[in-house]
Amino acid sequence: MKKKTEPLLGLTMGDPTGVGAEIIVKALHSSPHRVVVIGDAAVMRAAAKITGIPVEIRGIREISEAEFRERAIEVVDLGNVDMDKLVRGKVSSMGGSAAFDYVEMAARLSMAGEIEAMVTAPLSKEALNMAGYAYPGHTEILAQLCKAPGVVMMLVASDLRVSHVSTHVSLSQACKMVKKERIGRVLQLTNEATRLMGIKRPRLAVSGLNPHAGEGGLFGNEEIEEIRPAIEAARASGLDVTGPLPPDTVFRRAWQGEFDAVIAMYHDQGHIALKMADFDRGVNVSLGLPIIRTSVDHGTVFDKAGKGTANPTSMIEAMKLASMMCQS
Amino acid sequence: MKKKTEPLLGLTMGDPTGVGAEIIVKALHSSPHRVVVIGDAAVMRAAAKITGIPVEIRGIREISEAEFRERAIEVVDLGNVDMDKLVRGKVSSMGGSAAFDYVEMAARLSMAGEIEAMVTAPLSKEALNMAGYAYPGHTEILAQLCKAPGVVMMLVASDLRVSHVSTHVSLSQACKMVKKERIGRVLQLTNEATRLMGIKRPRLAVSGLNPHAGEGGLFGNEEIEEIRPAIEAARASGLDVTGPLPPDTVFRRAWQGEFDAVIAMYHDQGHIALKMADFDRGVNVSLGLPIIRTSVDHGTVFDKAGKGTANPTSMIEAMKLASMMCQS
Repeated sequence: MKKKTEPLLGLTMGDPTGVGAEIIVKALHSSPHRVVVIGDAAVMRAAAKITGIPVEIRGIREISEAEFRERAIEVVDLGNVDMDKLVRGKVSSMGGSAAFDYVEMAARLSMAGEIEAMVTAPLSKEALNMAGYAYPGHTEILAQLCKAPGVVMMLVASDLRVSHVSTHVSLSQACKMVKKERIGRVLQLTNEATRLMGIKRPRLAVSGLNPHAGEGGLFGNEEIEEIRPAIEAARASGLDVTGPLPPDTVFRRAWQGEFDAVIAMYHDQGHIALKMADFDRGVNVSLGLPIIRTSVDHGTVFDKAGKGTANPTSMIEAMKLASMMCQS
Repeated sequence: MKKKTEPLLGLTMGDPTGVGAEIIVKALHSSPHRVVVIGDAAVMRAAAKITGIPVEIRGIREISEAEFRERAIEVVDLGNVDMDKLVRGKVSSMGGSAAFDYVEMAARLSMAGEIEAMVTAPLSKEALNMAGYAYPGHTEILAQLCKAPGVVMMLVASDLRVSHVSTHVSLSQACKMVKKERIGRVLQLTNEATRLMGIKRPRLAVSGLNPHAGEGGLFGNEEIEEIRPAIEAARASGLDVTGPLPPDTVFRRAWQGEFDAVIAMYHDQGHIALKMADFDRGVNVSLGLPIIRTSVDHGTVFDKAGKGTANPTSMIEAMKLASMMCQS
């Protein structure tokens, strides 16, 4: 029986046609946590069989029914997958609809305090859309369910933490979103999240937007007009902030231990660095929500679904991080 | 005596206040090539002393005087550094002016065919400017000296090769420079250069500009309107091209061996990836010049100048690459 003092994590199973159930079974086998899975018990049982891991899948209706026994996984069973119709590796309306239900339930349980953090397995945007949910992904669903519009995406791989001033917009739009207020908010949220990750006084670095961080205004003025004022305001509020630094070296410096977190000005600035540094270990953390939420940093990996070969590393790291953030 | 069949490389000494002379002495000690240094013999002698490497510095006036003996470095001696006034680690007009002269001479020798390739040590933009030369760096000097306006910057680290559609412009300007014709030219030049690097039929990948390569137009249209047409035209001309691919994974995939070269849409897209992959080994190659030119991928490293501790790896790699490109 897992210690009661450990935080209770709610794991969403993700799209049943993807690798979600399999990576959850594998991750819990090698790295046990106190968890309930919010998903479908039949799909989880099939995943245990596929991965060859001897674990009992216990379908429950309420968190209170969970017993947290050894070699057992508690599944809040939404029973929303028809196993006869399940085709792994294939986008389907059923899969998208089921995955949405898990996220919705987990968000509700999180907000009610029944679970202390939620950890999400991958869903498919296409499947969501086929099921009639017009969201680009988890973040937007959660922002709406939690009524928290300004969610910030942080990626974490070991000690490299990167928050993004913008994410899913065109690059020219992203340039326009480099504004003092926004950067200031990302700095505060990043400081807070990094503290939850065990760093008492985070050393934050801010990347420039332009090559060489603008080279004194020669290649763009955003560093002078927006980024530097945001840094000064954050410093005045007591944060330890360095920057703006040249984008092509700041991530390397953080990775080598000079900074605890970096503020990236746009999606790929941070994503390129992080995926070069550590492709498997990446965890996505949503900042600015009223709940703690981490996620694997990969998609449904349809080509591996049903084979038992998907890599659970990102899920293991996502659970570890969520657990740490609950305990700080 | 070095073999006559080896190509003759001309190494510019770079700013005499920086680490150029020291990394040249160290690089030639551990990785001999048939070279002449275009620089100042007194500075080179001091560098030999500083690094403790027993090598004779032979000042010459013309390439024809070079004897290429063992344990000797031939220096086309421009005698433009006053050793009494030389302060290492400090930006100076003398340093900028001297460094400019070396580049000019090396370009002249390259164009005249007296050297087969030029390899440049770092200069300081500030020093150049103090000396009255208003260039951001080598590339722009060479573009003007060689009358070749459309120079393309390629960065190389081992088997990761990245060419850039734009470099020293603001990011919002870089977005506007993502045009079919320009991408097409970079593809052709990259294919040619990668062939010179020993790859018979380069597998080229093209990065998108926007997150997820635009996600079918959801986050920007450049992939649809400019990048894809450029790829189709390049394919029609016989090139092996894949893309546009999501920027956050294409560099990783190339690094893992899937592609021989990647076309990056802007400075930091390529630079972040390359500096995360291999900080020390980076080499800068100028494409689109009538001559072969490689360069170290770092600056003057003023804080190490005069200490003999600067890392010569990038210089060693730059010589190796230039030599290979001459022999193809």
